[in-house]
Amino acid sequence: MRALVKERPGPGLVLADVPKPRPGPNEVLIRVKRAAFCGTDIHIHTWDPWAKGRVKPPLVLGHEFAGEVAELGSHVAGLQAGDPVTAESHIVCGVCRLCRTGNGHTCRETRIIGVDVPGAFADFIVMPASNVWKLDPGISLEVGAIHDPMGNAFHTALHGTVIAGQTVLVIGAGPIGLMSIGIARAAGAARVIATEISGPRRALALKMGAAEALDPKTDDVAGAVHRLTEGLGADVVLEMSGHPDGVRQALKLVRSGGRVQLLGLPREPVSLDLANDVIFKGITVHGVIGRRMFETWFQVRSFLRNRLFDPGPVITHRMALEDYEKAMDLAIRGEAGKIIFQISKDD
Amino acid sequence: MRALVKERPGPGLVLADVPKPRPGPNEVLIRVKRAAFCGTDIHIHTWDPWAKGRVKPPLVLGHEFAGEVAELGSHVAGLQAGDPVTAESHIVCGVCRLCRTGNGHTCRETRIIGVDVPGAFADFIVMPASNVWKLDPGISLEVGAIHDPMGNAFHTALHGTVIAGQTVLVIGAGPIGLMSIGIARAAGAARVIATEISGPRRALALKMGAAEALDPKTDDVAGAVHRLTEGLGADVVLEMSGHPDGVRQALKLVRSGGRVQLLGLPREPVSLDLANDVIFKGITVHGVIGRRMFETWFQVRSFLRNRLFDPGPVITHRMALEDYEKAMDLAIRGEAGKIIFQISKDD
Amino acid sequence: MRALVKERPGPGLVLADVPKPRPGPNEVLIRVKRAAFCGTDIHIHTWDPWAKGRVKPPLVLGHEFAGEVAELGSHVAGLQAGDPVTAESHIVCGVCRLCRTGNGHTCRETRIIGVDVPGAFADFIVMPASNVWKLDPGISLEVGAIHDPMGNAFHTALHGTVIAGQTVLVIGAGPIGLMSIGIARAAGAARVIATEISGPRRALALKMGAAEALDPKTDDVAGAVHRLTEGLGADVVLEMSGHPDGVRQALKLVRSGGRVQLLGLPREPVSLDLANDVIFKGITVHGVIGRRMFETWFQVRSFLRNRLFDPGPVITHRMALEDYEKAMDLAIRGEAGKIIFQISKDD
Amino acid sequence: MRALVKERPGPGLVLADVPKPRPGPNEVLIRVKRAAFCGTDIHIHTWDPWAKGRVKPPLVLGHEFAGEVAELGSHVAGLQAGDPVTAESHIVCGVCRLCRTGNGHTCRETRIIGVDVPGAFADFIVMPASNVWKLDPGISLEVGAIHDPMGNAFHTALHGTVIAGQTVLVIGAGPIGLMSIGIARAAGAARVIATEISGPRRALALKMGAAEALDPKTDDVAGAVHRLTEGLGADVVLEMSGHPDGVRQALKLVRSGGRVQLLGLPREPVSLDLANDVIFKGITVHGVIGRRMFETWFQVRSFLRNRLFDPGPVITHRMALEDYEKAMDLAIRGEAGKIIFQISKDD
Repeated sequence: MRALVKERPGPGLVLADVPKPRPGPNEVLIRVKRAAFCGTDIHIHTWDPWAKGRVKPPLVLGHEFAGEVAELGSHVAGLQAGDPVTAESHIVCGVCRLCRTGNGHTCRETRIIGVDVPGAFADFIVMPASNVWKLDPGISLEVGAIHDPMGNAFHTALHGTVIAGQTVLVIGAGPIGLMSIGIARAAGAARVIATEISGPRRALALKMGAAEALDPKTDDVAGAVHRLTEGLGADVVLEMSGHPDGVRQALKLVRSGGRVQLLGLPREPVSLDLANDVIFKGITVHGVIGRRMFETWFQVRSFLRNRLFDPGPVITHRMALEDYEKAMDLAIRGEAGKIIFQISKDD
Repeated sequence: MRALVKERPGPGLVLADVPKPRPGPNEVLIRVKRAAFCGTDIHIHTWDPWAKGRVKPPLVLGHEFAGEVAELGSHVAGLQAGDPVTAESHIVCGVCRLCRTGNGHTCRETRIIGVDVPGAFADFIVMPASNVWKLDPGISLEVGAIHDPMGNAFHTALHGTVIAGQTVLVIGAGPIGLMSIGIARAAGAARVIATEISGPRRALALKMGAAEALDPKTDDVAGAVHRLTEGLGADVVLEMSGHPDGVRQALKLVRSGGRVQLLGLPREPVSLDLANDVIFKGITVHGVIGRRMFETWFQVRSFLRNRLFDPGPVITHRMALEDYEKAMDLAIRGEAGKIIFQISKDD
Repeated sequence: MRALVKERPGPGLVLADVPKPRPGPNEVLIRVKRAAFCGTDIHIHTWDPWAKGRVKPPLVLGHEFAGEVAELGSHVAGLQAGDPVTAESHIVCGVCRLCRTGNGHTCRETRIIGVDVPGAFADFIVMPASNVWKLDPGISLEVGAIHDPMGNAFHTALHGTVIAGQTVLVIGAGPIGLMSIGIARAAGAARVIATEISGPRRALALKMGAAEALDPKTDDVAGAVHRLTEGLGADVVLEMSGHPDGVRQALKLVRSGGRVQLLGLPREPVSLDLANDVIFKGITVHGVIGRRMFETWFQVRSFLRNRLFDPGPVITHRMALEDYEKAMDLAIRGEAGKIIFQISKDD
Repeated sequence: MRALVKERPGPGLVLADVPKPRPGPNEVLIRVKRAAFCGTDIHIHTWDPWAKGRVKPPLVLGHEFAGEVAELGSHVAGLQAGDPVTAESHIVCGVCRLCRTGNGHTCRETRIIGVDVPGAFADFIVMPASNVWKLDPGISLEVGAIHDPMGNAFHTALHGTVIAGQTVLVIGAGPIGLMSIGIARAAGAARVIATEISGPRRALALKMGAAEALDPKTDDVAGAVHRLTEGLGADVVLEMSGHPDGVRQALKLVRSGGRVQLLGLPREPVSLDLANDVIFKGITVHGVIGRRMFETWFQVRSFLRNRLFDPGPVITHRMALEDYEKAMDLAIRGEAGKIIFQISKDD
């Protein structure tokens, strides 16, 4: 079958022909129809220090996808060939204390498809049955293919926070930040203020429901937040940029007693004024990784099924898997929302 | 009346004679009998940058005390002359959104006695009636005098954390750290591990109930935590040192999905590996300031009244107010627990 | 001044001339402009057993109102003559453990205006300054006059519940139930199902955003809930009817592990199958009284200020105070939403 | 193998010889060494209406046990023959929304060993591997055999409640109530007051740490609670009796804003004054079923491993399985704590 592969250590990828995988007793073979491109794929492509330290080639890339069930392992129940599905990309051990007490998303044995085990930029993928998520009939495969980052956005926007009636600041309007804006609005946010350096993404932020979309390089973000909150600061800040200045601004602009959710990954240590910005303000800072298994997934299903939230505008480009270099370029320039690979021609 | 006073900008204090204050309609005049010495007093004495930026001399120092009601303002109910009392040292506005929704401890109009308004190292002090806390008959005035830092310890150990059955790491065993050890044990901590560079304080940590008291300069703290937690890390970490290495260790040694409470105040920005230590681990970091008004106070009362916790061992020295230089020296050397000024000779 | 008064024990009210009250040092005199009619007023009018046991005539009725500040007590700050205001109708002690730890709404010393102390169906009312709530400029006095029941609705819909993405069943669509429908929708409820025996109120329920409004006497409510929840039951049930059948249905139709909020007041003991409907299902039942002081009030302000929720459709009738008998009749027939008394002719 | 069996509908049990079960691929065969007797076994023995409606004979009884792993199914990892184990007695589907979001203990597909599927009063039992719980080396098999009811006690005492520093009222000191007393004390309860009609059990309640053990038939329970709480009421009430009077007393004696955990199963509907006892008081009532999978189990392990809690005194009798009639008699008379069947002679 076709697959986009990191063949050996070093920059670059190849579109290769690899053997079709076969499902074990508790696994499911899925025919991939749509897959989505993510920043992680760039890291592996360019072979940056993180990729070098983690990825063991050869590896099929891709961890965001949707498709249909092609074959069921002998012990799998509750699914049928032809079912439209997507999957949780983190494969966890299921038996450690973290897994058994609702913290499976932080399991230390986690293997991620397309990073640690074969991924979804291919005609077929095998997944553990417990990772497979059946899609509602009305959900397009494109939207199915972005359930993984959409889950990140739900996890960031809704876990441990009180959104209804609150002022939310979203720092960084990449695809996940953009989705979090719409989710926060659907959950009753009083106002969402977004910051983003890319103009096209600021336009998308407004489309997703932000009251204001500011350029942190030229606009007075602190002034805007203070004006809208009577000088108090935002109730909740979602830090989606991973930029050190973004993290510091998150802590400065959250109100005393408020909450900061950190999803964006800083590439290096960040220097913080903990005394003034965390301790004296009595705030809570929460690190967000992956998606809750499977609370977040049920939230996603409910919001989509009841049309509370539409991630559609975040999908800006569609292309063939063969055009992966073009996808890389678009993503690096920061002007795209989500890019979909149409692995199969049918829906 | 006698008072320990910062008379003018610059290092030094003087024991002076100042006018006895008079209570307004909603205030209470308290005859101070015991007061306790705190690191904040050192900052003001030595006139460090923080003190220079905040304190406006002349100022009577001291924010930890107990005594008895001497005179009631005209509108004050529920208290009587002679009642043994202590007080919340943070005077808040009471009407802002933070004050009216359970975040009064982060009120931006907070004035602290002995820092912003006249303090308790004096024969008398005036307090708003709503700050005054009546002591149970069985509570000594010494213990009454340390309700303020004890409240910090309760707030840090119990707010938003699940202590029963958990492994707790306390970083820094100064007086508040020491009290937090005993509080965590009383609340059912499975084990408390303490780290502290001062030998005498490590001995006190064991006395307060720590299973192990380690020297972070020479002992393998990470090894001990991993050994006791099957490699998982501590469920809860109380960072009481304010040292950048302490903060970093807190994040490293908490388990995935765990909680870090930051009370110790770093003097300068701290560089943190947020990606690996906060985000990938999915942890929560909470800044602790002051004491909840007045949930924390009711907790303190209940623990003392029911003898769940005894802060007694933390009080290591008693002296006259005149010996304040000696108290400074002891505290700076880090070998004392809590030092009590016996302002009045009777109990 | 004019006032609607229960002059002596027994049925009936009179519109009388009573002395204008004068504010004490910490109180505010308010010129009442709009007041709202509540079921409680019927109980006092008809002198039912509850009223007989609690009310001590003579008493001015009315606890829902808005107006403008007429005069300030000598110690009151933060308000000015002419300010548009409403007020929390529960006057609490402010010093008990419940008041000081966020449970002031359950203070055992609570006195309610129009029930225990003089009320708002009058040209003027005196309130403690700490109960007065300043209205935003854009808020009509009519909406100001229903902040008290709107606060009940917010408290019921949002306290301790997770609404975003959830299926909510509202049992009883009187004015508070109707408002709770709109609030739940604004906070991201996936779907709200309402039950109500009055046809006009079912129509209002749909207007407020219910997906379905069912008649519990003729419609298959259980069937509808199961159909919409894949047989699981509602995530959250708001019981606003106080009818024993409503309470039992709340417990039957909430899903396992779900939450039932009880606001409606049953007049007599209710027989419940606790084993099957509460214990085996592992559900949580929460009694709702009043409004959180003042978290609920800040929620109300935020929802109104940001136009997340409009209680307008719930106000169905306006009349002069002189027409109070007509208001009673309308309310008893259950066909009105909220009825407003236009105490003063100007806004 | 030997087994205690309900052979056909109607009263009575027989000790019979039945085939030894064989483990499937994901199952474990366990040699039972100790089992514990529970009230549920009486219901099945006497064939009461509940048993008649649920149990399908023939059935091996028993759901509380410990033993050692005898044989592993082909797919089972993480266990070895000879491992000392006990098991969660509720076998759940693992795939429904409840199971996948932390509410597995309320799964509607739950099958209980000894009730719905073959139980543990036998020489061997087969369990799904995911239900098996490995015991720490230091834990006796007797204590292992009561992990199931001990889990009920932990779940009731610790879930959603704040125990540290609180006053706890335990209504009904049967084995689970007795264990909950010790657990609450270990978790920092200020005071535990127990009520129980059986004298021997009241003595055990004191042994487990209750400050007072009262006879609800002759003692003034309300007076005692009010005396110890300044008239406020208990912060938390654990209702373990299932008696209608116990439930009503729970609601009466909890403080405003407090929490009642219902574990005891009333046999028939209970009439409650919801207006005065739940709604006006703003309390929360939570139904407790089973044990959280597997948060509760990790709590149990931590408390035992760190010697925070010793259930030992609750085990009052040991006997051979052949003496089951004697166990029934003891339990019905309410004078025993927990009764252990020594299924195998070795430890």
